[in-house]
Amino acid sequence: MEKNRFEKQLDFILEADKEKNILRQTHLSGHGRRENDAEHAWHMAMMIYLLREYSNADFDVAKAMMMALIHDIVEIDAGDTYAYDSARLETQKEREQKAADRIFGLLPADQQKELRALFEEFEAWETAEAKFVHTMDNFQPFLLNHSNNGGDWREHQVCRSQVMGRQKTSKLGSEKIWEYTEKRIEEHVEKGNIRNE
Amino acid sequence: MEKNRFEKQLDFILEADKEKNILRQTHLSGHGRRENDAEHAWHMAMMIYLLREYSNADFDVAKAMMMALIHDIVEIDAGDTYAYDSARLETQKEREQKAADRIFGLLPADQQKELRALFEEFEAWETAEAKFVHTMDNFQPFLLNHSNNGGDWREHQVCRSQVMGRQKTSKLGSEKIWEYTEKRIEEHVEKGNIRNE
Repeated sequence: MEKNRFEKQLDFILEADKEKNILRQTHLSGHGRRENDAEHAWHMAMMIYLLREYSNADFDVAKAMMMALIHDIVEIDAGDTYAYDSARLETQKEREQKAADRIFGLLPADQQKELRALFEEFEAWETAEAKFVHTMDNFQPFLLNHSNNGGDWREHQVCRSQVMGRQKTSKLGSEKIWEYTEKRIEEHVEKGNIRNE
Repeated sequence: MEKNRFEKQLDFILEADKEKNILRQTHLSGHGRRENDAEHAWHMAMMIYLLREYSNADFDVAKAMMMALIHDIVEIDAGDTYAYDSARLETQKEREQKAADRIFGLLPADQQKELRALFEEFEAWETAEAKFVHTMDNFQPFLLNHSNNGGDWREHQVCRSQVMGRQKTSKLGSEKIWEYTEKRIEEHVEKGNIRNE
């Protein structure tokens, strides 16, 4: 017997619970343990609401928050891909599409379509919502790592061009946040927390 | 020198990071470890978006999501109070008000006012947003515990009237969700997961 609408929604919600077990490379502030995907997304959604005044363009806040909440859900199957791991970055797209088919497929058809579209919109990086969510996706771990004196960069021996390469995309969502970030990166290079190749 | 607006916002955002260390009594699905406040709030915000069709009344989705994201932030100072711990419930209000003064006080004045009002609105349980967020605050741990065959109820030897007492408030936000919950409670009583006093 096919599950009813509500049961399908609950299946998806329970499946999402697994994001709490997917660890990222970022550490919590105060040099804590590693952060997981659910915590990262919670923090991003809050930041979208609090920092929305710095977006380059007006955007739909609820839509952007939901985009943030689910943007990493494919990692339940595909795993976290560290921003500076080039080998795994090559296969990331394929792994994540397959995961999206399965996970969003748990939902009733209309919500499956809606959330898949939201996920694809994030990936396409074109709308104001996608750009600002990407800015938060950069800035949230940046802030934690900045508060920890760059511990994550030092551990992975990340160099200036790598950090700049990723973080400069924040400019697409917020000139203001990119401006702040750029200054802090130079300070961390000066301190030796980020390698100056 | 007084901090500028952006610095105050970042101070609050970093302070909020501490919610990731506040453990609740609920365990993750699959009999996992205990859940923390940030994970709980992330899950609730997603559920608000996905289950909004079941709210008894129309509501502002972005507002309700933000309410969910911050509804437990006072626990950074006040700690988590288990729903069935009557001694700590008595002092909860006072502890939480003091925490709200300090934590929301980190924000610029306008956002301090806005988030404090959102927190008080949640506590007052009067608006459609507050009622639906409370429904999610009940239903999210209920779902996890239900998926774990009632492990948390058994551990705390919780009885039927306690679970009913808390969960029946879900009716204020969603008749549909309460109806589903009530049936599941009776099944757990029958199985002996919830004590039938």
